[in-house]
Amino acid sequence: MPPKDPVRPADDDARRLAKDLLALGHAALAWSDPDTGTPGISRIAFARDPEAGLLTLVSGLAPHFRALRDRPDCALMLGEVGERGDPLSHPRLMIRARAAFVPQDDPARPALRDRWLERSPKARVYIDLPDFAFVRFQPVSALLNGGFARAFHIAPEDL
Amino acid sequence: MPPKDPVRPADDDARRLAKDLLALGHAALAWSDPDTGTPGISRIAFARDPEAGLLTLVSGLAPHFRALRDRPDCALMLGEVGERGDPLSHPRLMIRARAAFVPQDDPARPALRDRWLERSPKARVYIDLPDFAFVRFQPVSALLNGGFARAFHIAPEDL
Repeated sequence: MPPKDPVRPADDDARRLAKDLLALGHAALAWSDPDTGTPGISRIAFARDPEAGLLTLVSGLAPHFRALRDRPDCALMLGEVGERGDPLSHPRLMIRARAAFVPQDDPARPALRDRWLERSPKARVYIDLPDFAFVRFQPVSALLNGGFARAFHIAPEDL
Repeated sequence: MPPKDPVRPADDDARRLAKDLLALGHAALAWSDPDTGTPGISRIAFARDPEAGLLTLVSGLAPHFRALRDRPDCALMLGEVGERGDPLSHPRLMIRARAAFVPQDDPARPALRDRWLERSPKARVYIDLPDFAFVRFQPVSALLNGGFARAFHIAPEDL
């Protein structure tokens, strides 16, 4: 008998929880080192833009800038650990994705930039620096972990 | 002229902050998919054990169990995002490491298990299940980001 998949298909509650987690303004990003292929990890600013989808703004100084450019496969985790109880009992959303840089002359960029500033007014001081870029994350698959033994597959189109 | 390294060597304050972050009971873990090599990410329980060093306890059901066994290169991030301000202004510690499973019959395991339970009494319900294992992280390098433009190299021996 094959092992039973411990991860269930998403229901409405799971999809709602995933959307709540996508509203957090930050994520942990796993990437592959462009030289060695070994894993790296960074905290990133994050938004679910209504037009562009899953999005970050990244500095050319960040180690994941070159990593995402050279090896676009990556993974995101969203979710906070609360004050109480076991850290693994707090919900988190893991997304496997491919990164794509938004060109400076992309016709969609000005509107995307304006919406980013609406959410994060303090980004005004660096958003237009020449070494900063927006990066879109095209989701491949997603897993919502709502606590012990409560895991759900989330379809990319539900993100 | 070569580009200036924007990351400074650690001072006492940076080392103290790194130690504080290591006292958090959880981390984000970046790993490589054992089949494809692409990045994955998980939340893990974490401790800095006084004898065994950086440590997690992992279930055989977790996707990173097989990943760490087959491809031990990984990366950890420790640090919480507070309520206020830009998420990137909150300190976090990134560690590149190699994972090593602690054998069930390792003579160091009983003491390590007792100390884990002192910190996390609720782990008693699963710590002895046959598919759970302790995994040590041998640090290779570490980067402390204390907020915008405040990044420090932390030596592995200072973790």
